[in-house]
Amino acid sequence: MHVTLHSSALFSSPFIIVPSQKVPTKMEVKNKYVAIKASINGAPEESDFEIKVENLSLIVEPESKVVVVKNLFVSIDPYQINWMKSQSSSQTSIRYANAITPGEVIDTYGVGRMLVSHRPDFKKDDLEAGFLTWGEYSIVKEGSLLNKLDPSLAFPLSYHVGVLGFSGLAAYGGFFKVCKPKPGEKVLVFAASGSIGHLVGQYAKLLGCYVAGSAGSQEKVNFLKEKLGFDDAFNYKLEANLKSALKRCFPKGIDVYVDNVGGKMLETALSNMNSLGRVAICGVISEYTNASTRASPEMLDIVYKRISIQGFLIADLMTVYADFLSKTVEYLHDGKLKAIEDISQGVESIPSAFIGMFNGDNIG
Amino acid sequence: MHVTLHSSALFSSPFIIVPSQKVPTKMEVKNKYVAIKASINGAPEESDFEIKVENLSLIVEPESKVVVVKNLFVSIDPYQINWMKSQSSSQTSIRYANAITPGEVIDTYGVGRMLVSHRPDFKKDDLEAGFLTWGEYSIVKEGSLLNKLDPSLAFPLSYHVGVLGFSGLAAYGGFFKVCKPKPGEKVLVFAASGSIGHLVGQYAKLLGCYVAGSAGSQEKVNFLKEKLGFDDAFNYKLEANLKSALKRCFPKGIDVYVDNVGGKMLETALSNMNSLGRVAICGVISEYTNASTRASPEMLDIVYKRISIQGFLIADLMTVYADFLSKTVEYLHDGKLKAIEDISQGVESIPSAFIGMFNGDNIG
Repeated sequence: MHVTLHSSALFSSPFIIVPSQKVPTKMEVKNKYVAIKASINGAPEESDFEIKVENLSLIVEPESKVVVVKNLFVSIDPYQINWMKSQSSSQTSIRYANAITPGEVIDTYGVGRMLVSHRPDFKKDDLEAGFLTWGEYSIVKEGSLLNKLDPSLAFPLSYHVGVLGFSGLAAYGGFFKVCKPKPGEKVLVFAASGSIGHLVGQYAKLLGCYVAGSAGSQEKVNFLKEKLGFDDAFNYKLEANLKSALKRCFPKGIDVYVDNVGGKMLETALSNMNSLGRVAICGVISEYTNASTRASPEMLDIVYKRISIQGFLIADLMTVYADFLSKTVEYLHDGKLKAIEDISQGVESIPSAFIGMFNGDNIG
Repeated sequence: MHVTLHSSALFSSPFIIVPSQKVPTKMEVKNKYVAIKASINGAPEESDFEIKVENLSLIVEPESKVVVVKNLFVSIDPYQINWMKSQSSSQTSIRYANAITPGEVIDTYGVGRMLVSHRPDFKKDDLEAGFLTWGEYSIVKEGSLLNKLDPSLAFPLSYHVGVLGFSGLAAYGGFFKVCKPKPGEKVLVFAASGSIGHLVGQYAKLLGCYVAGSAGSQEKVNFLKEKLGFDDAFNYKLEANLKSALKRCFPKGIDVYVDNVGGKMLETALSNMNSLGRVAICGVISEYTNASTRASPEMLDIVYKRISIQGFLIADLMTVYADFLSKTVEYLHDGKLKAIEDISQGVESIPSAFIGMFNGDNIG
């Protein structure tokens, strides 16, 4: 899900002097942003976060590669919790990622409008997508991901955060590149109404696969079946036995599973996989806040069914980025793909929206 | 490891009438073989097995595709325990494999000499490798794996069961085909003195990899380092902390792991893998007799390090069989590869040799 910034009357107006490209630009603005008070090692709570206001006062020299972006939409994703953990966490992988310092801004993918730039490739008022922050403004250094948007696409700006952003790329790349699916194969999507899941399911239907998924409410289940064309779906909160639910939805077994849930879901999915099944894992939401829920897969299944499990990150999918973008734009234009968005309003709404993701409150 | 048959004075002489290829062949012989008394659901014990003697009396018609092989060497492998479990076992994968019926012969890979054949492709006294039994004679039906040996190879016959048989193919294919290793990569081998492990380690050294492994005694550790050229090795029975041992042997992390052990070993290896590491799994010995020792990998590691885990069976490796055979024969001829064999004598020795494998008693 994502949040739209600057929609309230409260956002501050920047003071900018831009007399010429040859002299420094002086900028002063109040920037409201979300920070963590301290490292978070369990499930996140409202009290873990604070809304801070800083005086963003800077001078951008003519030769500087630093740009300032006014954030319009920024993404709220469960994986960000991993960057909020302390370095002594048992989950050592976070050392590979950028740990978030308490009190400092929190990085995320987003869309914004260029406010100050001396770079030839970014002009004032250009629209961009890239690494911004959970705040009203972002200072983006050279080398950080930032791409100019194609203004001819004429989609809602928020699409560039979700369906045309990282969620879309994760869904497309995880499904097509990592899992190499074939028409007619059986595809499982957990958290099927989530930002990645609802796209994986639709890509799979467009390829001609059988698709079934889980969601956390009857409303979402109906939505998957009636609006997104899923062949079957179930409410995991009502199923006493996850294995039975999967057997019911997949009487012929599962061939492909794009997982961002982990834990018991992954373990159960693996036990229902067909021979030569493929699992692509880009997240383990159920394990982020409680490492004791780890999956203990039946490895004998993995061997005898020759299953492959592949972890992947967005960075691994850049080779399919152009393909993803052109196909997805085409599907959206033709109305073959529906982008589901759950948008909250304003910086203040970020902590509760983030916390809600771990309870399955969001859709899209 | 494997067993040589017919080496004792006790083996029975078959009575065969072969007047011509056009009339039925009548054969009568006492066949001593190993059977299980009932399904085995924990660690195997001597009392689970019995040595049976049957009167193998059969008439092979001229048009029959059935052949009778006198077994010379047959393989004893941990994975066979999976076929001895009851069908109600929690390890459901065994339903995919051929369950062994109590009292009946037990299938295995082996080398034998043709005794009775009306098939044009197999003549009496030809040497073959394929699916035989834990006994003195095997009745081989059409369609069952059976390949004539190349008599020009001039290796000990037992090599065709191990280094040139399934163990060798599993090691070669698991390493080269599944893991796609590059020179200089760091390769872990658990059970490094085992039938597959000692070959994976040597293939990896021949490719120019760094190789370290574990074994169950100081003698085996010395052997790996001094005779097989391993860069490092440790006795897992003496290590209080497996993770520390791996960190000591792999200060720069593990890139490739061919696993047939599973459980804590797999879990710990995964936590020491480098980014883009590859794990090929062809067995989970530590879980065969105790499903509660399942691995619970840190899936967040799998995601952030983009690790792949791939189960495989011998059947998946047939595309590299010719390559495996020519390369391995060349390495053996040139003395670059050492085949380690642990050979027991006679049908009676099979149960204790099999049981010993689960205690790490074997080498090769």
